[in-house]
Amino acid sequence: MKRKLFILAVAALATCVNTIAQTTPAPVQVLPGVWRFTFGTPENITPVRARHYPPATNGLAALPPVGVCPVAVTASFSPRGSLVSVPLAGDEMIYGLGLQLQSFQQRGAKKRLRVNADPAMDTGDSHAPVPFYVTTHGYGVLIDTARYPVFYLGNKKHPPQAADAVKTGNGADNWNGLSPEQQRGLGAESDVLVEVPEAAGVDVYVFAGPSLCQAVQRYNLFSGGGPLPPRWGLGFWYRVQSDFTQDEVLKFAADFRERRIPCDVLGLEPHWQSHSYSSSYLWSEKFPDPAGLMTALGAQHFRLNLWEQAFVDPSSPVYASLLSHCGDYEVWGGLVPDFLQPETRRIIADFHDKTLVAQGAAGFKADECDNSDFTGGWSFPEMSRFPSGADGEQMHSLFGLRYQDTLQSVFEKRQQRSYGLARSSGALAAPSPYVLYSDLYDHRQFVRGLVQAGFSGLLWTPEVREAANPEELLRRLESTVFSPLAMINAWYLRNPPWKQVNRTANNQGRFAEGWTNVEAQCREILELRMKFIPCLHAAFVRYHREGLPPFRALVMDYPDDPQTRTIDDEYMMGDSLLVAPVIVGSTNARTGRPADRAGGDAASASATRAVYLPAGEWHDFWTGERRPGRQQINVTVPVGHIPLFVKTGTILPLAQPTLDTDDPASRNLTIFVYGDGGSTTTLYEDDGSWSPDLGSVQFSWDSVSQTGRVLRASAARTNTYQILDWKQIP
Amino acid sequence: MKRKLFILAVAALATCVNTIAQTTPAPVQVLPGVWRFTFGTPENITPVRARHYPPATNGLAALPPVGVCPVAVTASFSPRGSLVSVPLAGDEMIYGLGLQLQSFQQRGAKKRLRVNADPAMDTGDSHAPVPFYVTTHGYGVLIDTARYPVFYLGNKKHPPQAADAVKTGNGADNWNGLSPEQQRGLGAESDVLVEVPEAAGVDVYVFAGPSLCQAVQRYNLFSGGGPLPPRWGLGFWYRVQSDFTQDEVLKFAADFRERRIPCDVLGLEPHWQSHSYSSSYLWSEKFPDPAGLMTALGAQHFRLNLWEQAFVDPSSPVYASLLSHCGDYEVWGGLVPDFLQPETRRIIADFHDKTLVAQGAAGFKADECDNSDFTGGWSFPEMSRFPSGADGEQMHSLFGLRYQDTLQSVFEKRQQRSYGLARSSGALAAPSPYVLYSDLYDHRQFVRGLVQAGFSGLLWTPEVREAANPEELLRRLESTVFSPLAMINAWYLRNPPWKQVNRTANNQGRFAEGWTNVEAQCREILELRMKFIPCLHAAFVRYHREGLPPFRALVMDYPDDPQTRTIDDEYMMGDSLLVAPVIVGSTNARTGRPADRAGGDAASASATRAVYLPAGEWHDFWTGERRPGRQQINVTVPVGHIPLFVKTGTILPLAQPTLDTDDPASRNLTIFVYGDGGSTTTLYEDDGSWSPDLGSVQFSWDSVSQTGRVLRASAARTNTYQILDWKQIP
Repeated sequence: MKRKLFILAVAALATCVNTIAQTTPAPVQVLPGVWRFTFGTPENITPVRARHYPPATNGLAALPPVGVCPVAVTASFSPRGSLVSVPLAGDEMIYGLGLQLQSFQQRGAKKRLRVNADPAMDTGDSHAPVPFYVTTHGYGVLIDTARYPVFYLGNKKHPPQAADAVKTGNGADNWNGLSPEQQRGLGAESDVLVEVPEAAGVDVYVFAGPSLCQAVQRYNLFSGGGPLPPRWGLGFWYRVQSDFTQDEVLKFAADFRERRIPCDVLGLEPHWQSHSYSSSYLWSEKFPDPAGLMTALGAQHFRLNLWEQAFVDPSSPVYASLLSHCGDYEVWGGLVPDFLQPETRRIIADFHDKTLVAQGAAGFKADECDNSDFTGGWSFPEMSRFPSGADGEQMHSLFGLRYQDTLQSVFEKRQQRSYGLARSSGALAAPSPYVLYSDLYDHRQFVRGLVQAGFSGLLWTPEVREAANPEELLRRLESTVFSPLAMINAWYLRNPPWKQVNRTANNQGRFAEGWTNVEAQCREILELRMKFIPCLHAAFVRYHREGLPPFRALVMDYPDDPQTRTIDDEYMMGDSLLVAPVIVGSTNARTGRPADRAGGDAASASATRAVYLPAGEWHDFWTGERRPGRQQINVTVPVGHIPLFVKTGTILPLAQPTLDTDDPASRNLTIFVYGDGGSTTTLYEDDGSWSPDLGSVQFSWDSVSQTGRVLRASAARTNTYQILDWKQIP
Repeated sequence: MKRKLFILAVAALATCVNTIAQTTPAPVQVLPGVWRFTFGTPENITPVRARHYPPATNGLAALPPVGVCPVAVTASFSPRGSLVSVPLAGDEMIYGLGLQLQSFQQRGAKKRLRVNADPAMDTGDSHAPVPFYVTTHGYGVLIDTARYPVFYLGNKKHPPQAADAVKTGNGADNWNGLSPEQQRGLGAESDVLVEVPEAAGVDVYVFAGPSLCQAVQRYNLFSGGGPLPPRWGLGFWYRVQSDFTQDEVLKFAADFRERRIPCDVLGLEPHWQSHSYSSSYLWSEKFPDPAGLMTALGAQHFRLNLWEQAFVDPSSPVYASLLSHCGDYEVWGGLVPDFLQPETRRIIADFHDKTLVAQGAAGFKADECDNSDFTGGWSFPEMSRFPSGADGEQMHSLFGLRYQDTLQSVFEKRQQRSYGLARSSGALAAPSPYVLYSDLYDHRQFVRGLVQAGFSGLLWTPEVREAANPEELLRRLESTVFSPLAMINAWYLRNPPWKQVNRTANNQGRFAEGWTNVEAQCREILELRMKFIPCLHAAFVRYHREGLPPFRALVMDYPDDPQTRTIDDEYMMGDSLLVAPVIVGSTNARTGRPADRAGGDAASASATRAVYLPAGEWHDFWTGERRPGRQQINVTVPVGHIPLFVKTGTILPLAQPTLDTDDPASRNLTIFVYGDGGSTTTLYEDDGSWSPDLGSVQFSWDSVSQTGRVLRASAARTNTYQILDWKQIP
């Protein structure tokens, strides 16, 4: 009977296929500067409704008040689902939608936001799709859906409004005769249209600015504010070869210390487990004494991060208790946990708590939690059913973040800070201390990922694996040390890549001639990371409290400079540092970009790249040279010297490089005063506890006479940070 | 009120999200060996319901009778749509789903069948997705939907049935520890699951074999049978540079005749029109006398094919009358015709009839009729609405084929055969005389396209454009002459690529040293095409009458040989010829495959490739050497000699190569008798009329004494074919 009624209802819908109902409810202000439009009957399972962290209301209240919702959203319905419409001005440009690795500015694009492990085309597939965007008009829009929404970012209905703008091109280059601006639909008013499949209604949240950056901050604070990583999380990470035994890990760690390679975290890959596809979460015989391993590593100030994935193998102790808390399709012969159920999360978290974390694991790498279309057994179908009521599509959209929550809850319960990795995330991810990564390996895209992640409350690491040559290795390492998580992921390399960049030769133990020079260059780059940890920590404190991303596209800081609107290979780190990575070829077969200098001499290689400097004056970090902004310059840098520019007036405290962040010397500072030193800089103390005091230390460059100035640190607390020296860069 | 009811209905659906109704209707035999399962209330707009051609009932009746529907199909419904389930045996392998350029055997895959202009990933995107597959168990299944269905080809529900088959791998190569067979889900029973979004019901057609090939034939005959191209369509096609003027076209044509380049069809690209993106369908000022041009070309036995696309520019004379027959979104400032409406088709066809075809155009290239996600203005959104009741998704699935029908109706009305090109097609396409092509340019994929198209009632040409070197040019040309439409598409080259393969140099008129040698080699390859036209024509007659594709994967002819099941770089052309193209590198930046021998000496280059020969005995076409089958051999061939193998016993009639098919000498034959000449070969006469008599001419190798044999041709009609000579290949 139920069945019959159901079919009748569906059939009834099919007859009104052309009936489109337009609804225009008034927006409700739900938090300062945050409005909600409720259209129709929204679904029960959405990012906001499934949220784990509450909004950071204090931070929201501290942003500038905005009295009126900045944009009028409308919606209509059809059997296809809900269709949301948001007007666009002629000059408005769009950013966001999650970790879009293939493109930057989104106006003119069509994107179907779908979780995908192999986002190799610019169709909206992403490890972390987020149905949130911001525009240069200074507001953000979140479509609160766990469906795969389709965004049409600037479509127009006929009759054609721009037909006269279409000219016949020359056929060869502009195949359709449209300029890039015309192809993006710029210059004329249009709409962002978002189709939410199946949904009989949807909540749409609008985040006021007034600036683009403040709209992002408001979204991040609505999400709960950024995470506060432990200081060790900001050190260097190295993931060892997948087949390593316990003794090999210990030997590897000792070798790092002996060769003075800075490193805070070692990572283990799948074969630490007795069964990894799907996961047993049990140590394999390669690791006879895991607790002993972790104790020994801890004594050398290494933390251990454990790879795993969420599909639960029949050999796992939690398998039986999860049988009634999983989806109806298996993945790799394992159960798919229904992470939307508290009981599911509890079962998995308790097991991790009592075993792996009790033994000393400092965190996890949550792999494979995205989806793919490439083999049938790879992840669960979209029409899967879960006890929570979610289908596979909804579960995919929420899976990565709810898996992170599950793992993180172990550490929350222990009041222990953690920092980890995950290959999938989604909307409202800001508070989660998990950093995204990818199996793709195009350096250019990896840098774009750094720029993109900041629009959508995400963290991203451009991990380093092999390279075509030492130069590429060093340039990639430069990029990863200026990211939220500095990591070499050597899961298929028995030896550090600086000994041999070629995978086959590396695993055969054939080291490159002169590898110790490359090692020394890598060490220097890692030491650069260690120097910037205090600044990076401070940037994360702002993310935590104010929602300000630690890594930002230039358009976030310089929205009034039109030149910044298409720059996706430079970014701001913290308040005053502009980073412009050098990209020298790629080993990624997918992109087809050839390696530039196979076998080149890394030690002597230098590279030139164009860097755009926004308004203001800037100092070259390496030479101190002062360069006026609002111009593009060419910089030539040797390997090891990633182009860095410091805003004039900045007081930049750099730490003494140490092998790990446990070393108290990692808080010894040399302070660089750029230009007039007119900006105050704040660092934060952090005792590593669950809820640290975060006492602030301000550095300012104070007048003592008409001609003399002196560096002052606010006296309140300097029991952790020590000033060793200071230098003025005029 | 309507709106409110509608929302209530949708909301009601949302509450029964977990209600899945299983239905198991009995199948109805609708035609011999063709059964229909009707589940729920199917949509009104589907490939079968929108079909243009009726089934070829005579051909269907001639296939072996099959009494029982070979497979039990079930379906269930949810608010997501309809879910069709078809059981799979452990060893069953799957082919089809349209022009899948990235993969061959489909078991283990997940495919969302979506029309796409840039099908660069193996996700189901295709110029011509077809929701039809066949299996090695000898039946086919058509899901009659114009939605974007998702095929899960071999998924299993938990509890896991194959958990013990999952072993921990070595991490480095088999990252998930599964063998290729396990990844495809082979070895265990599972299901093909097809989710049809939004649909409250669906018709599923099952096509009996008993063989895989016969299941394909049945599908093609259900579609209406294959087309019968005019003989000139089987000659060589050359598309000239997009900017050419009328005089340049005439000069180019004269040059071809002077240099004795075989060519039947010249093609013009966008700039023959006054406005091409969107289309005006009006001649530009480059062509002051189109009718005169076509008369002059016709006198030299060239036909003219005209590029166009379906989005109607405001400057087109048909624009105003189409305003009420189009979708609500524009493309490139042009209208999107509602091709599902007869009146729309009539308006466009009438205009073509009275202008372009009246002037002498022999056919069209229907470009851009697929969809893409890459810019917002590129094609119409899926939520577009059309007066016929279709939405954009349905229209995309049907657009290519209904556009072809519209153009073809001009020729049907005139009772004039045509042959053309289209960039999109779909289900039930067999009768349409349009050949698919792609902007992608990977030679390996282009060869796979030839193999794939035959499973789904499609025709495909691996067109030739530029090349990395002359060797690649020649190898690509070899492939295109063994395809349904042999073409160089030089739309961005001012000169034939044999003068200069490099695009820039070609357009600057800098010809390669020794280009006349390359030209001579190309001429020889084109003459090879001309020699095979009688056989190819006969293969098309079988396609037309029996539904047997002229180009077929080996698994279609040798289903019992397991080795053939994964071979997608060899194919059968006609009854007895095995073609194994040589692929020597690629200029396609997307695939990242480097060119093998930039600047290599084409004249002397030879290449070696592995060729699998199925059961039986084979003769090397070039050497006559006899090779036993059921083995893989390596063959080394000079450029110009594509590996070809002739079944022993074959009587192979080859034509005298001519410059065009109008030349009566193109019917002069030399007959090659392979081995014992035990197979009879049939050619068909064809006077080029709308409904030709197709009188058959049989060639047999008859005993005249115990030791002597003689070639006989059935005497009935040899007024067209003339036997010049015959040779025996022992």
